[in-house]
This record gives sequence, structure tokens and C-alpha cells, in this order.
Amino acid sequence: MTAPSISHRIVILGGGFGGLYAAKALRNAPADVTLVDRRNFHLFQPLLYQVATGSLSPGEVAAPLRSLLRRQKNTRVLLGEAVNVDAAGKRLILSDGEVPYDTLVVATGSQNQYFGHEAAWEPNAPALKSIEDATRVRQKLLYAFEAAERETDPTRRKAWLTFVIVGAGPTGVELAGALAEIAHDTLRNDFRSIRPEESQILLLEGASHVLPVFPVSLSEAAERSLLKLGVRSRTGVRVTEITDAGVTLTSSKGEETISSRTVIWAAGVAISSFIGALAEATGAPRDKAGRIRVEPDLTIPGHPEIFVTGDAAYLEWHGAPLPGLAPVAMQEGRYAAKAILDRLRGRPVQPFDYFNKGNLAVIGRAAGVADFGRLRFHGWPAWFLWLTVHLMYLAQFRNRLIVFLRWGFQYLTFDRGARLITGKNP
Amino acid sequence: MTAPSISHRIVILGGGFGGLYAAKALRNAPADVTLVDRRNFHLFQPLLYQVATGSLSPGEVAAPLRSLLRRQKNTRVLLGEAVNVDAAGKRLILSDGEVPYDTLVVATGSQNQYFGHEAAWEPNAPALKSIEDATRVRQKLLYAFEAAERETDPTRRKAWLTFVIVGAGPTGVELAGALAEIAHDTLRNDFRSIRPEESQILLLEGASHVLPVFPVSLSEAAERSLLKLGVRSRTGVRVTEITDAGVTLTSSKGEETISSRTVIWAAGVAISSFIGALAEATGAPRDKAGRIRVEPDLTIPGHPEIFVTGDAAYLEWHGAPLPGLAPVAMQEGRYAAKAILDRLRGRPVQPFDYFNKGNLAVIGRAAGVADFGRLRFHGWPAWFLWLTVHLMYLAQFRNRLIVFLRWGFQYLTFDRGARLITGKNP
Repeated sequence: MTAPSISHRIVILGGGFGGLYAAKALRNAPADVTLVDRRNFHLFQPLLYQVATGSLSPGEVAAPLRSLLRRQKNTRVLLGEAVNVDAAGKRLILSDGEVPYDTLVVATGSQNQYFGHEAAWEPNAPALKSIEDATRVRQKLLYAFEAAERETDPTRRKAWLTFVIVGAGPTGVELAGALAEIAHDTLRNDFRSIRPEESQILLLEGASHVLPVFPVSLSEAAERSLLKLGVRSRTGVRVTEITDAGVTLTSSKGEETISSRTVIWAAGVAISSFIGALAEATGAPRDKAGRIRVEPDLTIPGHPEIFVTGDAAYLEWHGAPLPGLAPVAMQEGRYAAKAILDRLRGRPVQPFDYFNKGNLAVIGRAAGVADFGRLRFHGWPAWFLWLTVHLMYLAQFRNRLIVFLRWGFQYLTFDRGARLITGKNP
Repeated sequence: MTAPSISHRIVILGGGFGGLYAAKALRNAPADVTLVDRRNFHLFQPLLYQVATGSLSPGEVAAPLRSLLRRQKNTRVLLGEAVNVDAAGKRLILSDGEVPYDTLVVATGSQNQYFGHEAAWEPNAPALKSIEDATRVRQKLLYAFEAAERETDPTRRKAWLTFVIVGAGPTGVELAGALAEIAHDTLRNDFRSIRPEESQILLLEGASHVLPVFPVSLSEAAERSLLKLGVRSRTGVRVTEITDAGVTLTSSKGEETISSRTVIWAAGVAISSFIGALAEATGAPRDKAGRIRVEPDLTIPGHPEIFVTGDAAYLEWHGAPLPGLAPVAMQEGRYAAKAILDRLRGRPVQPFDYFNKGNLAVIGRAAGVADFGRLRFHGWPAWFLWLTVHLMYLAQFRNRLIVFLRWGFQYLTFDRGARLITGKNP
């Protein structure tokens, strides 16, 4: 695909946080860098729920990869879908071609999973991984209010105004908080037959608290904030069935069914299918979630030329596996780039060391939780910090400014500008 | 659907320019106003081509109808698809219900048409009427450059880099100008194997000049501006076939086929299918394009309680039919509202009088044409006027500000922020 070249060929698979930060850290590398992705853009996933809730437009949380890497003359971007690796021949196999490499950085991220119920649950409970997911969730949420406005039967109307979010990790909590704000503030004066503020918003979680990765004190603060917004969280429950009429769950109280026309899935992610092929081609060991158990330098055992970063990599750090979060992926991507550079320059490679910058989540307007190890706080300081950090990390200055403006408008007017129902109505 | 009411019930069908301006002009009417639309937003169609070319996001050219009409306590919005009218019973029939009216304002606009070749041509040549159309065109345009970058065969690569736009009305011309800018400026440094600036952009038109509704002197100025941007316009040609491999056309030189993987349709619009049902239910006369020949007060002959505005109405003014443009629809919508108010107040109703505010089109960066009857000009003053007018008419202040910022960025950096390829790749 490329002309014959004598320089070192680095192929990066995936333009998420891991792949993009690896590519950027290689900007001055004496090498040919190729970034391969199925999509032509980098997606800022932590703000995807804001697209799903009509605060932001897709173009504001995504930036074209070519634009981001335009100035790096040693780097090219290829739109393509990787299906396998020829580890002996050092070739990345695409669905419609191949790319040779000397070093490969795998940063394929994760995808939605429904614990074996994909076929039955996915059509009724969209999840939040891609731009298309987000516009589908947005359509479903907003259409529910429209359908309720036209429904005259009180039982059916109630089912339209009952929203169930499965999974109370950061995405689930942020989604529930935003949805509560839509129902209580944004749409308050928009309808004539229904009162959106009478919506029921339920947040279901299998663990004993919402935000299970946070310390219990912050989880409890989050639960109180949610309750104040009108979100009821039900912890220690297991979902056993999702249909277009509602959710069935079991808990210590037995089985019950909740009538709801709008169920959103924020519960589970799985490793992309490419990782299975990669493990088979390289004999890489995997954990039970399918992640590749990498060496301390993030390479596959026996394959020092293949790095795995982000959600697809399993690495223990201080006794616990590193979580599938954006900061981990960024640091791993940057580390892989540095390790490659060190090798090219004949320097020794240090093992990967994670720097925990802390954990943040927001719950609607002016509430949030922040966990920096010893320093823990909640309320508006956590919310404000979250806003600042997320603005800072947006990939383009233009998007930073526009998102800042949109948030400002929304804060002042309670309105959300991107409330479009697109696609086919149910 | 509504509770029994003694006040006059006005139903407006369609939330485009005609319907929205009618609803807004009825804000103080002593009546129950209901706006029915299939979509939950008002679309600013004149800027849709900027979504298709990655300048703006869908949320920036659309505004939620509920948001726009929130403060009008006499007005409700219903999401629904009208299929027919019971003219005797004064009921608008929806696909899943009905809405009774005392006065009906029909503002259903127009839809794409391919002159009888819908089934064969539409899949290969998307048009530009809806948000979904625009993201589909955007995907097709941007994907062509990606595919060309990966194509090694020169003939096939050339077909990926050949873009054909059918129809040189304002939309076709604006699209061609924007596409030329993408190829020559926006993407210039983005690729490594291809040179986007070697793209061929062809604009096909059946009439003898581009922008046939403008005076010939301005059409010729537009052709020169297009040529300077690298757009070749071919006038007096007729398209006889569109496949996924290209376009066949006939002209005075005979038949020829142009190999192109990207054909965009900007040639024809037709009246929405609801108008056929309406004409049958009311016995309304129609012109050969299917538009309803309305009385001087925009009502259907014999049905003074039904107004037809915008693209669906046929009315002659100074000897020529009024064109299907946004300013006509706005004025007709506002007029219908005023006529209804006059009737309710027992005042005489004056016939509709059109005020021609002139005609504008832009051709890429800093070029445009303006026709105000005696005053005609082109170049950057026309471009600047176009920008100002379009910003002014955007429905929400927030969108006005954000679009202004995006245009500013784009003017300075040549970059386009909303260059996302979404949906399934071809």
C-alpha cells in the first residue's frame, strides 16, 4: 500500500484516546506512522451522553483524525477495518487490503455488550458507544415525551414517561442526571397535555451502590444528589429481561416488572472482536473479559513488536487491574509511543507507570463527585472541575469554544439546543 | 385529542417556513393553535448544504419546534404524519389519529423527485431535503476521498475523485462551490497518496445557464466564479442514467458517460403526497407540478377554511408563478395568519401581496450573486450580504452565534469542523 521505504513502519490501530495520543507522541519520530480506523474521526466518548441528551451536536464531540494529524508529515490516516494480524509476516489484515508494519500499536477500545442477550435486548435498549448510538438514544428519549403528549390512556402514558437506565457507572449516572434535568426544566413548558416533570427515572445497578468504582461516601453523596433531581436508584438488582414494554428484574425482594417504553443500556462493555483474532494469531494470554494480558511494557508476551493499549489491555497496577477509562488509554498510548522511540534510539525501555489523576462524575446541574485518593469532595466544586477538565481535553480549540458557549447557554436558559429527533420514528 | 373547547381551532400542518411563520403570527390570536409536523424541529433549509459539506452540524441548522413556540400559551405542537383530510367533517387525518379544525393551514413543502427514476437513481444520487439527506451526502463526499486515498488503480481512483452535481439552481451551485473549497483548501494537506485538489467537479444543468432563475448577466458571473474555483459547469445537458459507476447524459454533442462514484442530486422537487389526498378531498384544481391553484387569499376554491402556503401553493404574481423559496413561504404563512385574525375580528381580508426582497446565492468563499430587480451585483458584496441575511433569519439566537463562530473559524483556517463520516460505509 505504501511505496517501499527504509524507515521503520509503525501502524496504530484505532483513533480513540490510546491511538490518537500514541500518534501525536510520534510526531517527530524517524518513522512512517499509519493510523488505521474504521471511522474518520476521534470521538470524545466522555461527552457522548450529552449528545444523547440534546446538549451537544455530534460534530462537537468528534474531530476529524486527518485534521488532528494534518501537520504530522510522517503520519498518514487510513480508513479501514482490521480483521486479523499476520504476526509472522508482520501484516495487519483489513477487510479489503493489508498494511505491513514493523511495530503495531493496538488501541481498538471496547464495544457494547448485553451479557449474551444482544439479539433480544439490543433493539429495545440502545447503548452509548458510538455517534449513531447517541443519536438513537436521543431519538428514543425525546420521542417518548412526544408519544406521551398524544397518548390518552393513563397507563400507556405512564409507560411512555417511565425511563429506565441499566447500569449506574459514570455514564448511567450522568445520563440519569441529564434526563432528570430535561424532564424537570428543559421541557417543563413545552407540552400542553403532559407534565414532563412527572416522569419517572429509574437507575438500576447490580452492585450495592451507584458509581461502584468510587468510595462509598461519594457513592452515597451521588445517590442523594440523584434523589434530589428525582432519579430513583435501585441497587443490588439484576435485569433478567428487556422487551419493548419494559424491564424485568430480580432483587432480594423477588422478581418484578417495570412498564417502560424507554430503556437505555449503560451496563457492560466487551472487547472488540479483533482482539480475539489477535490473541489467536499471537498466542497472547487473556483475562476472563477477553483483554490481553500484556507485559509491563504493554507488549504481547513473545511479540515485543505488538503493543496493546487502553480497554483491550489487561495490566495490574498496585494489585488491581487498570480500569477502562480515557486517562488510562491516553497514558498507555503515550507510553507506547515513547517506548518505540526509545527502542529506535537504542535506549532502554522502562515499564509502564500509571499516574492516577483521579476520578470525576457529574450528576445534573451543579452537582458531582470527585475522588483524588485522599482528597474527596462532592457538590458544585466537583461539577465545576468536571466541566473544566472535559473542556481542556476536547481535541480542537474550536470545539472547546463552541461547547463552552453551549454549556453557558444551557446553564442560563435550561434549554438544550440539539434536541432533534432524527431517523425513523418507532 | 383536545378537550372540548369553544374557541376557534386553527391547525397548521408543517413546521417549515410557512407553518412556523403562520404559528408565530398567531401568538396573540384568540384561538387554539395546533402545529402538526412529522419532525420535532424547524429546519433552516437554505443552510442544509453546509451540513452536507461539513461546515455546520445538524443541530445548528435546526431548532426544536417546541422550543420556538414554548412561550405561546395558545399553541401546542403535535408530532404526527398527516395522510388525508375529511373536508366535510373538518378533521385532519393522521396515520395514527385525527385532529379537528375550524381553519386549516397547509404548509407541507416539497420533497425530492427524480422525474420518474426514483427507484433507480435515488440510491446512487442522494438529494438534499432533510437532515438525514445531508448527513448521507456528507458521508458520500468525504468517503470518496478516503476511498481514493486507498485506491491504487489510476482509473478507479479518478472515478472516486470525480464529483457530479445534477442541477445548477442555488443548492447545486452552493454545493459545487463548497465542494471545490473542500478539495482545494480544506483537505489539501490531509492526504498522503492523493492530491484532493486534482478532483474534478462537474455541475450539470438542463437550462442554458447556471442559476436559471437569475438574470443572464449574473448567471454568467456565477459561471466565471465557479470556473475560478475549478468547477466545470455543463449547461443544456439532460441526464438519462445514473448508476453507482457514473452518469450518462445527452447534449447537442450526443450521448456520453462520465465515470464518477459520487453523484449528488440537486435537480428537482415535487409536492408532498399529502397534497394529492387534499386535492381529492376538496376538489382543488392543481397545476401540472401538482401544486394547488389557490385563490388570491391563498385558500382552496370553495373551501375558505383551508389555506395552502409555500411550495404546495400555485399563485401567479405579476404574470409568473411565485417560486418555491423560503421568503415566499414565510410571507404566505404570515399572510394566512393575518387573514384568519381578520376574519375572527370580522374585518375584511385583503388578497395576498408578495414583496420581492430579491434573490441571493453564494459560490464558495467571497463570491456570490445578488438580484434585487434593478440593483444587481456579484462578488464579495453579494457573498457578504448572503452571510448576513442567512444569519439574521436563523431561528434561534444561540444558533446564530454558533454559526457565526463556525463561519469565522472556517474563513480563517479553511478547516471545516463537522467533517464526520457517520452511518454505514458503502
